[in-house]
Amino acid sequence: MQWGAQTQTDAAGDDLTARFESRHIGPTRNDALSMLESLGLHSLDQLSDRAMPAQIRMTDSLQLPPARSEQATTARLSELAALNNPRRAMIGMGYYGTVTPSVIRRHVVENAGWYTAYTPYQPEISQGRLEALLNFQTMVADLTGLPLAGASLLDEATAVAEAAALAHRAQRGKGDTLVVDAGLLPQSLAVVQTRMGALDIKIVETDDLATSPALDEAFAVIVQTPTTDGRMQSTGELTELADAAHAKGVMVIAAADLLALTMAVPPGQWGADVVVGTTQRFGVPLYYGGPHAGYISVRKGLERQLPGRLVGVSRDADGVVAYRLALQTREQHIRRERATSNICTAQVLLAVVAAMYAVYHGPSGLRRIAHDIHQRTRLLAGALSAGGVKARHESFFDTLTVAAPGKAADVVARARELGVHLRLVDANTVGISVGEDATDEDLNHVVAAFGINPDTQADPWGGFGATLRTDSYLGHRVFNSYHSETQLMRYLRTLEDRDFALDRGMIPLGSCTMKLNPATAMEPISYPGFANLHPFAPAEDARGYRILIDELSDWLVQVSGYAACSLQPNSGASGEFTGLLAIRAYHESRADHDRKVCLIPSSAHGTNAASAAMAGLKVVTVHSAHDGQVDLADLATKIAENPGRIAAIMVTYPSTHGVFEDTITRLCEMVHEAGGQVYIDGANMNALVGLARPGRFGGDVTHLNLHKTFAIPHGGGGPGVGPIVVADHLVEFLPNHPVVPMPDARIGAGGTVSAAPWGSAGVLAISYAYIAMMGPDGLTKATQMALLNANYIADRLSDYYPVLYTGANDLVAHECILDLRELSASTGVSVDDVAKRLIDYGFHAPTMSFPVPGTLMVEPTESEDLGELDRFCDAMIAIRAEMDKVASGAWPVDDNPLVNAPHPVSRIGADEWSHPYPRSVAAFPAGHHTGPIEGEGSDKYWPAVARIDNAFGDRHLLCVAPTDELLAQQQ
Amino acid sequence: MQWGAQTQTDAAGDDLTARFESRHIGPTRNDALSMLESLGLHSLDQLSDRAMPAQIRMTDSLQLPPARSEQATTARLSELAALNNPRRAMIGMGYYGTVTPSVIRRHVVENAGWYTAYTPYQPEISQGRLEALLNFQTMVADLTGLPLAGASLLDEATAVAEAAALAHRAQRGKGDTLVVDAGLLPQSLAVVQTRMGALDIKIVETDDLATSPALDEAFAVIVQTPTTDGRMQSTGELTELADAAHAKGVMVIAAADLLALTMAVPPGQWGADVVVGTTQRFGVPLYYGGPHAGYISVRKGLERQLPGRLVGVSRDADGVVAYRLALQTREQHIRRERATSNICTAQVLLAVVAAMYAVYHGPSGLRRIAHDIHQRTRLLAGALSAGGVKARHESFFDTLTVAAPGKAADVVARARELGVHLRLVDANTVGISVGEDATDEDLNHVVAAFGINPDTQADPWGGFGATLRTDSYLGHRVFNSYHSETQLMRYLRTLEDRDFALDRGMIPLGSCTMKLNPATAMEPISYPGFANLHPFAPAEDARGYRILIDELSDWLVQVSGYAACSLQPNSGASGEFTGLLAIRAYHESRADHDRKVCLIPSSAHGTNAASAAMAGLKVVTVHSAHDGQVDLADLATKIAENPGRIAAIMVTYPSTHGVFEDTITRLCEMVHEAGGQVYIDGANMNALVGLARPGRFGGDVTHLNLHKTFAIPHGGGGPGVGPIVVADHLVEFLPNHPVVPMPDARIGAGGTVSAAPWGSAGVLAISYAYIAMMGPDGLTKATQMALLNANYIADRLSDYYPVLYTGANDLVAHECILDLRELSASTGVSVDDVAKRLIDYGFHAPTMSFPVPGTLMVEPTESEDLGELDRFCDAMIAIRAEMDKVASGAWPVDDNPLVNAPHPVSRIGADEWSHPYPRSVAAFPAGHHTGPIEGEGSDKYWPAVARIDNAFGDRHLLCVAPTDELLAQQQ
Repeated sequence: MQWGAQTQTDAAGDDLTARFESRHIGPTRNDALSMLESLGLHSLDQLSDRAMPAQIRMTDSLQLPPARSEQATTARLSELAALNNPRRAMIGMGYYGTVTPSVIRRHVVENAGWYTAYTPYQPEISQGRLEALLNFQTMVADLTGLPLAGASLLDEATAVAEAAALAHRAQRGKGDTLVVDAGLLPQSLAVVQTRMGALDIKIVETDDLATSPALDEAFAVIVQTPTTDGRMQSTGELTELADAAHAKGVMVIAAADLLALTMAVPPGQWGADVVVGTTQRFGVPLYYGGPHAGYISVRKGLERQLPGRLVGVSRDADGVVAYRLALQTREQHIRRERATSNICTAQVLLAVVAAMYAVYHGPSGLRRIAHDIHQRTRLLAGALSAGGVKARHESFFDTLTVAAPGKAADVVARARELGVHLRLVDANTVGISVGEDATDEDLNHVVAAFGINPDTQADPWGGFGATLRTDSYLGHRVFNSYHSETQLMRYLRTLEDRDFALDRGMIPLGSCTMKLNPATAMEPISYPGFANLHPFAPAEDARGYRILIDELSDWLVQVSGYAACSLQPNSGASGEFTGLLAIRAYHESRADHDRKVCLIPSSAHGTNAASAAMAGLKVVTVHSAHDGQVDLADLATKIAENPGRIAAIMVTYPSTHGVFEDTITRLCEMVHEAGGQVYIDGANMNALVGLARPGRFGGDVTHLNLHKTFAIPHGGGGPGVGPIVVADHLVEFLPNHPVVPMPDARIGAGGTVSAAPWGSAGVLAISYAYIAMMGPDGLTKATQMALLNANYIADRLSDYYPVLYTGANDLVAHECILDLRELSASTGVSVDDVAKRLIDYGFHAPTMSFPVPGTLMVEPTESEDLGELDRFCDAMIAIRAEMDKVASGAWPVDDNPLVNAPHPVSRIGADEWSHPYPRSVAAFPAGHHTGPIEGEGSDKYWPAVARIDNAFGDRHLLCVAPTDELLAQQQ
Repeated sequence: MQWGAQTQTDAAGDDLTARFESRHIGPTRNDALSMLESLGLHSLDQLSDRAMPAQIRMTDSLQLPPARSEQATTARLSELAALNNPRRAMIGMGYYGTVTPSVIRRHVVENAGWYTAYTPYQPEISQGRLEALLNFQTMVADLTGLPLAGASLLDEATAVAEAAALAHRAQRGKGDTLVVDAGLLPQSLAVVQTRMGALDIKIVETDDLATSPALDEAFAVIVQTPTTDGRMQSTGELTELADAAHAKGVMVIAAADLLALTMAVPPGQWGADVVVGTTQRFGVPLYYGGPHAGYISVRKGLERQLPGRLVGVSRDADGVVAYRLALQTREQHIRRERATSNICTAQVLLAVVAAMYAVYHGPSGLRRIAHDIHQRTRLLAGALSAGGVKARHESFFDTLTVAAPGKAADVVARARELGVHLRLVDANTVGISVGEDATDEDLNHVVAAFGINPDTQADPWGGFGATLRTDSYLGHRVFNSYHSETQLMRYLRTLEDRDFALDRGMIPLGSCTMKLNPATAMEPISYPGFANLHPFAPAEDARGYRILIDELSDWLVQVSGYAACSLQPNSGASGEFTGLLAIRAYHESRADHDRKVCLIPSSAHGTNAASAAMAGLKVVTVHSAHDGQVDLADLATKIAENPGRIAAIMVTYPSTHGVFEDTITRLCEMVHEAGGQVYIDGANMNALVGLARPGRFGGDVTHLNLHKTFAIPHGGGGPGVGPIVVADHLVEFLPNHPVVPMPDARIGAGGTVSAAPWGSAGVLAISYAYIAMMGPDGLTKATQMALLNANYIADRLSDYYPVLYTGANDLVAHECILDLRELSASTGVSVDDVAKRLIDYGFHAPTMSFPVPGTLMVEPTESEDLGELDRFCDAMIAIRAEMDKVASGAWPVDDNPLVNAPHPVSRIGADEWSHPYPRSVAAFPAGHHTGPIEGEGSDKYWPAVARIDNAFGDRHLLCVAPTDELLAQQQ
């Protein structure tokens, strides 16, 4: 039977309920028509025809399955989750069974107040997650015994590579040899090889680190503790290693199990200079490999070498202790090709989970969990030993490597039948890791898998090996106050309430695409079938994930117009690096060894240059013409100056100026003619989906930001997912994995860029759901609506703030740059003042001073409705009037609502008020309804603190949770 | 193997992580010791020994399974959910497939900000859910075509019974006959029979309502539209019925399908006086029968007869439009035995879901869903007809009753195999209801189940029958503004932020037990296996629910010391009524027909009296002695005055005065000696669990409030779950169900009190998880800690506010009454002022003026930690000092922070400030950290409005969402 369309339009022509598309896209059809009309246009197609160069436009439509309903998508993802069979994961190798406290799952992972927040670049409206990250840093610093920890890295393997890169940089002149532990996790080794290989650094792998002759040449040595096969080194052995290395000027990097560090003398005490690892087992689900928060901590003196984000303590304009990102001058967006790392995204949401796990359990709780795991592992070793099965090492924390001569595969298979995944080391060896989640029944099953009667009583066997630590740690109030569920729930709510996320209002961030993160897409990541699977579980137990990965890859290939996709890169920057590595490998495969020049337009995001440097390429900058477009004449010059040396150009399209450059095809041709490859940065893919495919208009490789274009939430600053899509000739150079080889036979030795085979597999269901629910027409319409929303704002605001760049027909792409430079010069009101004042109006600020200093870049996305766009425009127009009052002298330059913004409620409710403008102007500049919802009462969002003094914090660097004494002192 | 305890205590003796008990209970062991010390005690056992009379104490411990971990509990409930097989529910009969929008599930049902809120008795901190409920009322009023709708009833069947009771009362003198439609839902009929039977009202069931001779005697007629078997009456037929009834002075009650009313001329337009039904199909999961929000609307003139809660519009002290419960003088706690109903709990959380479903879809979306369902039903009828299967009625909305002579069971079985549950009407008849969630595949399966090839093309068959409505409805802005997911997400967040719930701080409500609602207990209610099961699905597809129900019943029996349990009552008041009915039936079974007197102490909750009246009993009040205890002398007198007529006594234990009366056993004996039964109200069971069992110290029946004692959240005012537990001789009088007979063979004709066989089955997993995780020791410790917390507060505050009643050794039970009467008299500061001022300090007010006017009753529960208890005590002490400043004349009686409380931020941020106390005292009376969390910034909760004028709203009764014009006018 044909059962009739489940979608209909009503009299007004609006399809309000049936398709997800209409839930995702903000403006109604009628609103869109009136917005088009204000632009002198009559249809979305007309808009996209006018804005985008004809030569890049797709002539077909997206070949994707038709839009599915939310209900059908939920059903499909439930079905896929059910095709995964997590069993009890006791494989180890960097991924351990853990118990996510449900209070954290519900109130953080499944809470839009946390997951829809943006990176805390605007600290006044990010104090909640900044405190959570400071807790993370404090936890890592305390447990590793080093004074300074970053706010998370992408995973353990990349953290090891970042540490190696840090050491290489810090030890400049100490040569190009890196000594690594043969016990290093295989995926860490692979990532280090890939990263170091690009820089021609030699890696020496050895079992005997302290006495390795290679130490004489080395700049650093990496030790894994405990080793992959579970051996826990004695503290003496590690101290000897550190002493030997230091004696030769070699830096010591420890890749350490953070939970074991609740028991063992920490690396900072036996001499490690840098400690890295993962915090996954602190309550973060296995997620088939990620996303998980990697960690790094460093000894004093290495602060400024630290890759990634660092939260520090500072104070606000009223002297209140306040948090913000510290030492930002280290970062890639400032240092470009001189940056220590291209890392940009962190893993904030997961770092918050791990930190809250420590907050909830506290030091004694963590110690108990670790002791429990260790004791149970000893009992397991004892039971196996009683049954004649010997563990390889007598010292261990949680992992046993045991002999099963000739029958290891049988044991693993039997365990699997009993519901437990063990590690098949080789034909004669089995690995077993005991996690927090392992039940008595699981342990009995492990014993039984070896053919031993689990009812046999046995004594514990083996020991910890390392010296037990006796110092106290996690002594800060925050780790000792929220141990009941009620307490933690309220702590989480309080932190959440300090922050502004998408659930409160628009976050109009140019280049960041803060669109809706649909609930239907978010729900599946909590399904046990997706959450609890170990990345090295056998393929037959990961069928759901494999199907999801295949289908999603196909869809991304279809959208982008390329030949194949790798989902391994777990951030946009990682995607850039991966794509450039593929280009480099391609040239080398053709013996084109001189091609080391990477052309980068001056307007490019700083990561581009940093990625190129990491890939061993030399950056040559191409200038912009006065209209903001890449200057083709300068491009021709730079090409001419580097004959036979052009490896690639990296170009963002539409450009970071928010414009569709009509020269893009010519640019691609020029580089191709010079023998170079074209890397099209997909940061602005939200302006292309369904309208143009970079793989068809000249690109050889593109990374996509699933967290920008494909609805994965920003999570307060991560996870990101940055898959790359490549043309046919680059497919063989896509990344592979040492433990789980890519099923696509075309992929060979493309290196390894993330710890897990498919990076942040755990959140791929979000993009899958988004594409499935939008369908080809919905995706295309979303792109057009993103263009419309941006052009509507540009049009409404252009009389008040010049729009810096436009393309054909005076149209912008999906974002626009408001040029405040002249206004600032004439009024003394800076772009910062405007951004902070927007907080008083109930908005997150747009992107500030990128790509052009003194400007604001606004990207509304398709999800914002006309009401919210108008509320934003009204606020900007009102702020312009406020600037005029400063210019006219009605308000002093140094005491007006702009320079004093934002106004926290502590100031509003103070007894004194000495400003030349009234409190109501400070507090309620847009009237009492300072929020997207109309109604009774005041629904205003209040920033937790006033303007934060960044410089103060960098001068007095403090990157752990401040003591109560300090808090009392500074206020 | 013995794998070792997973719980250990650390050096300090605190078990911080291993057992759920330590997550649920607020004070740490050390805190508890210091609290005990401040009371001159050294152990929890000593406290409970001193507070509670020895003669009622248990001598054994609870015979319950040992505490399970949260992880094990999740595993167990997942397992049980998987034993349910919801398939596609197409059974109908008052329960329909629906699609809960995931944005509502995530942001309301799974959001502590919504589900941990209390009933909105303090309207200033409840504006969010009051607005949501006003939306609900507006939706019901608009769709039913009547001007006034209540804020939800318990389910459709009880709503029908409430309507009948309303009519009986409104039509006093019109006789005792009720005419009901033979097409009434069987469960509605059963509940009406039970309720009316208790009042000796005669019920005449007929197919031919308009011409029934019984109309001549009747006070009301009830028509179901469409009927249970799907017939949609023509509007003409319904108009004729209404005309005929009205001509005879008979009131017309319509039980109507709310979704069909988006298409049909509504009952209000064809003459119905009252319309009732369920809103389940507005996005509320099937939940195996509940909780769902029933609805009721009435014509003008019946406002004051309306049972249940009613939200109305009023204004605050600043003239801002504000919402609050209207016409509260109708309610049982005021009118006692003269109340129209004992209904106390509403179904707020579910009403919010239904209202938000309408907000999200809007009028055209709802219409489209209804049209779609109807059209697909017509296509289904056509396909069946083409295959030779005829529907009984040619006019229908969504339900077909079709002939399957001799093979109905086969068809239903075949459909079940194909994944669809149909209704087995009888051996020759099958019922099919098409819900919003039915897919094309489901419809094909239905066709195939009849042996018809689903590929056959067929024309639609049949029609709607009723006149299509042409008026517009849901025209209010709120139903036309939030149709994108982003819009609804922000609307929900904004409303949530207006309210104070447990996730912000303590809600110290005497008699209401606002304890933790654990996330692990909450998660399972979203599992599809629990959420999507139809209550009339065959038992073999409900195995998980049946096991859960059996185990939970056993545990409740064990805790309470009775013989059996009925989970059918879906509120505490419903439990009271059910228990009294059992008592009445017991006496009647012994031919003891004169026993109609129900003794009720004067301090009892008003519902007790109302329930007794509903059960056809005569209330006789027993006075309290000066010490607050039941006056046994007066009891003896009342017994003597009613020889052979005592049916029961209803007594709350510990008493509503928060005291363990040592006379309880004597009281029970006296009533038993007089031949009466003892009903022990379990409202205060939180003070007994693990220490005493009411079934063992004299009770014959008790209702338990699972939403008080057993961790089901209050949901902002519902759902409640009020199972009764009874002694052996009352088991046969427990409720049964007309569609799903109770599996317990002992239960016979006990009547029916809820629509669903096990009431609000969908939330039972919460109490199940709570008991499983706490275990016998944890439950007992929780009780002791509840006593300790209450006694700690009583002790700390007694120097500032007299504690009205204490029991043995000057100890209170789990709550205490602070007597403000003298203070109020001497200062002019009322108990209201203190309650509202507590909002400024960041608290929900305690229970006001119950059970004693002019007092505050404080119940901290075991979940609040010492820090929060002290914060509360500090606030109360500070308020006492503020009262003294008023008394001393430092602040005027009519202008001080107390009478002006609460202070919304709109007032704080206003330019003018003319009060004799500074803004900081108004805004931050406890300093900037006005919240349970220490840290930087101001985390204060701000009430959305100032003090609300209740009388104004009752004088200008408006119970639908106010127009923008009105909003503009009043401000």
